[in-house]
Amino acid sequence: MATLPLISDEAASAEVLAVFADIRATRGTDYINNFWRALANDPALLRATWDRLKQVMGPGALDPLVKEMLYIAVSTANGCDYCIHSHTAAAKAKGMSAAQHGELLAVIGMAMQTNGLVSAMQVEVDDAFRV
Amino acid sequence: MATLPLISDEAASAEVLAVFADIRATRGTDYINNFWRALANDPALLRATWDRLKQVMGPGALDPLVKEMLYIAVSTANGCDYCIHSHTAAAKAKGMSAAQHGELLAVIGMAMQTNGLVSAMQVEVDDAFRV
Amino acid sequence: MATLPLISDEAASAEVLAVFADIRATRGTDYINNFWRALANDPALLRATWDRLKQVMGPGALDPLVKEMLYIAVSTANGCDYCIHSHTAAAKAKGMSAAQHGELLAVIGMAMQTNGLVSAMQVEVDDAFRV
Amino acid sequence: MATLPLISDEAASAEVLAVFADIRATRGTDYINNFWRALANDPALLRATWDRLKQVMGPGALDPLVKEMLYIAVSTANGCDYCIHSHTAAAKAKGMSAAQHGELLAVIGMAMQTNGLVSAMQVEVDDAFRV
Amino acid sequence: MATLPLISDEAASAEVLAVFADIRATRGTDYINNFWRALANDPALLRATWDRLKQVMGPGALDPLVKEMLYIAVSTANGCDYCIHSHTAAAKAKGMSAAQHGELLAVIGMAMQTNGLVSAMQVEVDDAFRV
Amino acid sequence: MATLPLISDEAASAEVLAVFADIRATRGTDYINNFWRALANDPALLRATWDRLKQVMGPGALDPLVKEMLYIAVSTANGCDYCIHSHTAAAKAKGMSAAQHGELLAVIGMAMQTNGLVSAMQVEVDDAFRV
Repeated sequence: MATLPLISDEAASAEVLAVFADIRATRGTDYINNFWRALANDPALLRATWDRLKQVMGPGALDPLVKEMLYIAVSTANGCDYCIHSHTAAAKAKGMSAAQHGELLAVIGMAMQTNGLVSAMQVEVDDAFRV
Repeated sequence: MATLPLISDEAASAEVLAVFADIRATRGTDYINNFWRALANDPALLRATWDRLKQVMGPGALDPLVKEMLYIAVSTANGCDYCIHSHTAAAKAKGMSAAQHGELLAVIGMAMQTNGLVSAMQVEVDDAFRV
Repeated sequence: MATLPLISDEAASAEVLAVFADIRATRGTDYINNFWRALANDPALLRATWDRLKQVMGPGALDPLVKEMLYIAVSTANGCDYCIHSHTAAAKAKGMSAAQHGELLAVIGMAMQTNGLVSAMQVEVDDAFRV
Repeated sequence: MATLPLISDEAASAEVLAVFADIRATRGTDYINNFWRALANDPALLRATWDRLKQVMGPGALDPLVKEMLYIAVSTANGCDYCIHSHTAAAKAKGMSAAQHGELLAVIGMAMQTNGLVSAMQVEVDDAFRV
Repeated sequence: MATLPLISDEAASAEVLAVFADIRATRGTDYINNFWRALANDPALLRATWDRLKQVMGPGALDPLVKEMLYIAVSTANGCDYCIHSHTAAAKAKGMSAAQHGELLAVIGMAMQTNGLVSAMQVEVDDAFRV
Repeated sequence: MATLPLISDEAASAEVLAVFADIRATRGTDYINNFWRALANDPALLRATWDRLKQVMGPGALDPLVKEMLYIAVSTANGCDYCIHSHTAAAKAKGMSAAQHGELLAVIGMAMQTNGLVSAMQVEVDDAFRV
C-alpha cells in the first residue's frame, strides 16, 4: 500500500483533473495509473513530473520503444518494481518483440555483471576512453 | 589503481593471448582495454566473460547502438564510471549523435527521478500492468 | 515472509525482552515492529542495533523530524520498502505535514535525477568544491 | 574527464547563456560549476534541469539547509561523488555546523545499516505502517 | 507477477527441457524454481545463465556455503528480494548455522554502514591500499 | 579530497587518540587509514563505528577472511571504491589466494547478473523459498 492515498477523479482538484485530462488525451486511454494518482497529492509535483515525462518520452532522436527499454534498464538497476512493470507494459504496447525483450534482458544481465567485475577490480579508465 | 595487476601481452599466458587475439580480431583494433587486462588474472573468468559479451552485444533483434545505450543506462544507475566511459566511447564509435546522447541523458534522468518518486511513495503495481 | 522467524514475546529470551522493554519505554508504545522481532534471532545484533539507533535518532543538533526525512531519503535511494514505510509513519507521527512530504518527494526526485545525469556525463568535481 | 565537453561562456549559445545568467543571478556568484557546463551540450536539457532545480530547492515548507542535507543523503546512497561534493559545499554555505554534519553522517550510516539488515532478512511491512 | 510467463514442462521446448533436466540432475531435485521458468522464455539465455551459474557456484577454491553467503551479500546490497530468498534457502540447505547467519547479517549491516560513511565523507583511498 | 579534514595525531583530541590507540593495538600497526582520520571529526561517531567494526569483524562463527570477502561483495554492489580497496588489501593480508580472489569476482559477477535478470523479469518468490 502506498504511503500516500491514491487520488480518485472525485477527490481530485481542478488542477489535478487538468493533468489527468492531458494524460488521457496523450495516451488515448481513460485509465490513469497509480503513480499519477499518488503524485496527485501534490498537484504541482504531479504537473511538473507529467509535463517533463511527456516531453522526454515523446518523439525525438531516439525511437519511443528504445526510450522505454532504456527506462526498463535504469529501473532494473534501481530495483524499481513498479517502474519495471509499467514500462515493460509500455514497451510491449509499442511493439517490443519477444526476441527484443530477450536481448534486453541479456544486455541488462551482462551490464550488471561487468559493472560488478569492474567495481570489484577497481579498473582505472583507459586514457583511450577519455576524450 | 586496480586491485589486480593489468596483464601485459608479455606476461600473458597462451590461454589469455588467445582471448586477446579474439578481442582484437572482433573489434578490428590492436588495443586491449584495462578491463580485459585485469580480468586476465583469471584466464577462465576472462574467457567466460569475453565469450558471453561477444555473444550478447553482437548482431540480433536489437541494434548494436541501442545495446550500447542500454549498457550506459544500467552502468549509470550502478555508478560504474569505467563502464560509462567505455560504453559511451563505444556508442559514439557506433554513431550515437549528439542529439541521441542528449535524449539518452534525458531518459536516464527521468527514469532515475520517477524511480525515486515511486520508491518514496511505495506505489503498488496496477493490476493493468500484471499480465 | 522474512528469512528468519519473528520472535514473539513468549519465545523471547530475557536478553531480548530487555531490549523490547527499552523499545517500548523509549517509544511509549507496547508495539514492537517486525524489524526488531526478526533481529531478535540474534540477541547481540538486536541489542547493538537498537542501542545505536536510539542514540543516533535521539535529540541532537538535527531535529528528530529532519532525521526521519533523511532516513526516508537514504531508504528510498536504496529501495528499502520496509524502511520507507516505517520511517514515513514515524515522520508523520513527528508532525511531517503534507506540504513537507511533497517537498521531500520533490527533493528526492530531483537528487535522483541529477545523480543520474552527473553519473552518465561523468562530470569531474570542481576544484571550488574541494576544500 | 567528462564524456561531454564543458561548454565555456565563449562557446555557449544565446540559449545557454540565458540559463547561465539565471544561475549567476540566483546564486549571486559568477561561477558556473561543471555540471551545468556539461549539461549545456543540450540547451533544452540544461534549461529544464535548472528551472526544476531552482523550483525544488527554493524556499518552501522545508528549510533550504534541510533540502541540501536530503540531497546529500540521496547522493550518498547512490554514490554520486560529484553531487556529494557540490551539495556538501552548498550545505556548509547555508550554515551546516560540524555537529549537524556529524549527525547527518550518523543518520546516513544508520539508515544504510538497517536498509541492509531489513533487506537481508526480508522483513515484511507491519500492517501498522500501512495506512 | 512476472513480466514474462513461467514456462511449464508441458510448454517447454526440447532445448529448455534439456536445461531443466541438467538443473534437476545437478541439484538432485525435480523442482525447477520460478527464475529458470521465467528465463525459459529465451532458451539461449536460459542455457547461458545456467551453464555459467553451475560453473561459478560449483566446487573450487571457495566453500560452496561461502559462495552462497557472498551471493546473499551482493543480492542484499542490490535489494533483490527473490535472490535473497533463494540463496538464503540454499545457504541453509548447505548448512549455514543460525550463528553464521547472524554474523552474515552483522557484516552486511556493517559494510552498508561504512559504505555510506565513506561515500558521504568522500574519503580518498590511502596509498597504502594501492598496490 | 574528502569533504572533511583528515585529523592528524597532532590535531586529535584525547578521545580520538584513545580510539587510534585501540586501532593500532588491535591491528598491530601504527598506521591509521584515512577513513578513521575523517571520522575523527566526530569523536563519538569514530568511537561507535570502531567499537562496532572491531566486534563484527572479530573472531566468531565465520572465518575472518570470509568476513572480508563478504565486505568486498557488499562494497562492490554499492560501488564504494575506498571500501573495496581497503577490504581487498585486508583480505590479501588475511591470506586470500589468487584463486579465491578470482572465484570471489566470479560469484560477484554472477550475482550481479542474476540480480538484474530477476529484477527485470520481476520473478515472484517461490513458495518453496518462504519458510
